[in-house]
Amino acid sequence: MIYLNCAATSAQKPPCVREAVLQALESPGSSSRGASEQDLNAARTVFDARLAVADCLGATHPERVVFCANATQALNTALFGLLAPGDHAIATDYEHNSVLRPLNALAAQGVMTSYIPVDRLGRLELERLESLFQPHTRLVVISHASNLTGVVLPVREVAQAAHEHGAFVVLDAAQTAGVLPLNMVELGVDVLCFTGHKALMGPQGTGGLIVAPEVSLCPLLYGGTGVQSALPSQPDTYPEHLEAGTLNTPGIAGLGAAARWLATTGVEEVARHERALRSRFVAGVSACAGVTIYGEVPRCEHVATVALNIGGRDSAQVADELAQRFGIAVRAGLHCAPRAHAALGTTGQGAVRFSFGWFTTEAEVDCAVDAVCTLAHEAGA
Amino acid sequence: MIYLNCAATSAQKPPCVREAVLQALESPGSSSRGASEQDLNAARTVFDARLAVADCLGATHPERVVFCANATQALNTALFGLLAPGDHAIATDYEHNSVLRPLNALAAQGVMTSYIPVDRLGRLELERLESLFQPHTRLVVISHASNLTGVVLPVREVAQAAHEHGAFVVLDAAQTAGVLPLNMVELGVDVLCFTGHKALMGPQGTGGLIVAPEVSLCPLLYGGTGVQSALPSQPDTYPEHLEAGTLNTPGIAGLGAAARWLATTGVEEVARHERALRSRFVAGVSACAGVTIYGEVPRCEHVATVALNIGGRDSAQVADELAQRFGIAVRAGLHCAPRAHAALGTTGQGAVRFSFGWFTTEAEVDCAVDAVCTLAHEAGA
Repeated sequence: MIYLNCAATSAQKPPCVREAVLQALESPGSSSRGASEQDLNAARTVFDARLAVADCLGATHPERVVFCANATQALNTALFGLLAPGDHAIATDYEHNSVLRPLNALAAQGVMTSYIPVDRLGRLELERLESLFQPHTRLVVISHASNLTGVVLPVREVAQAAHEHGAFVVLDAAQTAGVLPLNMVELGVDVLCFTGHKALMGPQGTGGLIVAPEVSLCPLLYGGTGVQSALPSQPDTYPEHLEAGTLNTPGIAGLGAAARWLATTGVEEVARHERALRSRFVAGVSACAGVTIYGEVPRCEHVATVALNIGGRDSAQVADELAQRFGIAVRAGLHCAPRAHAALGTTGQGAVRFSFGWFTTEAEVDCAVDAVCTLAHEAGA
Repeated sequence: MIYLNCAATSAQKPPCVREAVLQALESPGSSSRGASEQDLNAARTVFDARLAVADCLGATHPERVVFCANATQALNTALFGLLAPGDHAIATDYEHNSVLRPLNALAAQGVMTSYIPVDRLGRLELERLESLFQPHTRLVVISHASNLTGVVLPVREVAQAAHEHGAFVVLDAAQTAGVLPLNMVELGVDVLCFTGHKALMGPQGTGGLIVAPEVSLCPLLYGGTGVQSALPSQPDTYPEHLEAGTLNTPGIAGLGAAARWLATTGVEEVARHERALRSRFVAGVSACAGVTIYGEVPRCEHVATVALNIGGRDSAQVADELAQRFGIAVRAGLHCAPRAHAALGTTGQGAVRFSFGWFTTEAEVDCAVDAVCTLAHEAGA
């Protein structure tokens, strides 16, 4: 099976990830849940992972790397932690349901929301942003790259505008952390939300948020922190303020190992590899009559994700045929991004998404091109 | 090192847990995030774990087993999902900060709270319960067993009273799931919250809640479910209603394997082993002058957790000496249970907690008894 669904999860991990998970799983102890050597070792493993993730994502304060179960929990923590009734939030049509659904729930509580539109070609209409700000705009939340078209969004420009209006910037880096050189300070991001199991190549069950030093969030979860147990609420110190309950030490150990592996390999090297694969794939399928590629915005950078359709064929049927006849795993449907599909006009058909990773080879990409061209040819015949 | 901190986390796991985690980690695919064979395999792994956990905890509807990162997240989901301003909730003095802190946060939003007291000897004053109900009492939340003294609380009686008053019952089974035969239907529990990494012997990073069929919870997290992506909010179906974002498939795979291992071994067999260890330890340390054991309530069942102090010595110093001189890992301090310590009069001193598990041996217990007696003798000398 050729796995081209890396935007959902990185299928393969560097071998060090497996080793780190196993080692943590076989070491007794729980971070901050005792002072024995075992418990301290678990705490060291977790802190080393905070350091590695902070280093990878250009954060200055490792203790403000807060671990969660996934990017969804991180985004919920950021949005519910910053927004209150009467506030206004700006998002984009490219956002994932991990942003859209929290905002819809907050709207029911009296938070107002506006969206920067995406046009039919997949371009974010940045020129519309300025008119969306209101006196009570509390934050702008934006994906670093679309999980549908792979287009990289102009985060720096959005952040500059947001800060001019006194609003915070929440970045959904689920599709970029690990594959795009990323520095939250340089980008002007106040809260960066990441997942551990995609391009960061850690295990599923990991992710988190990084909160800039001057930003304060109301906790989403309340519970034991292992320290300051007499306090009636969460301690104000980070990461305890936002981390309640026992951490996923094996997962975090794996994530830390993956982040250190990335530092050695070089995120720029990963980016180069994936960019080349994407270009190869796009060049190949562009030559097939009947294939529509979405969001190929000129002069825009992309991560290694491509959405396409073959004629008017249902995307799920195409994906199923790719799996059954060609042994290629992709993802069809709406990709948890209903506003993006609405913008592109693909709500009914969905789209077939191909996404590549560090372990994807040119030969696999060529197989995918051949398969798409075969299906397109058959559809046109 | 002798690890006697099993109430914090089970240090050793059955070998099948390691195998299941590794297999999931090395299998590409993500549950509900694609329809390829790999993704379907991940979905099967997760569903098998739901079946195994439901079977272990006496739940009738496996699809209503909702996976979370830990019991804390499960308890937050239950409490924030059931309580609204104007509601009243009843808890006990034995509750962990994973219950106390959410209730304190809810109190700030207008939820009223009452506590069933624990007396100086560690007995829950059940006779006080009836007077605590109010017309707007929405739920009673209760630990199945104290994480401090190990005492098992009268859940069935509490549930009966709660239901007579039209209130839900939320059970914190963090200290009992996997070590006490447990049937949520027979106990009359509406929402059962569990952790995966303690007596269930799964990996850290796992846990969840089981929601009885007639109970409806408002979600705590909103985000992608991989299905029904066009909906503006969470689907009403379980488990999607309460599960947003990519699941911790390797952790859940390990938890499922652990639950199946428990079914084969027999929870009653585990309980028998741990009861015998606890009796042996209590008999041993009771014979040492200067040792105070807390919560040895007559005619009360206990799980394998014992809290004690040696004279007036600071509990953290005793724990440190146990680790450094005797190689014994325990847990000192307040154990995230400040009301229980207040009830027992140990807020200042804390307590030294010994907790045993399936892999603890009689020889290890004897070493612990000897160490406690040595320290008690030295303190009295």
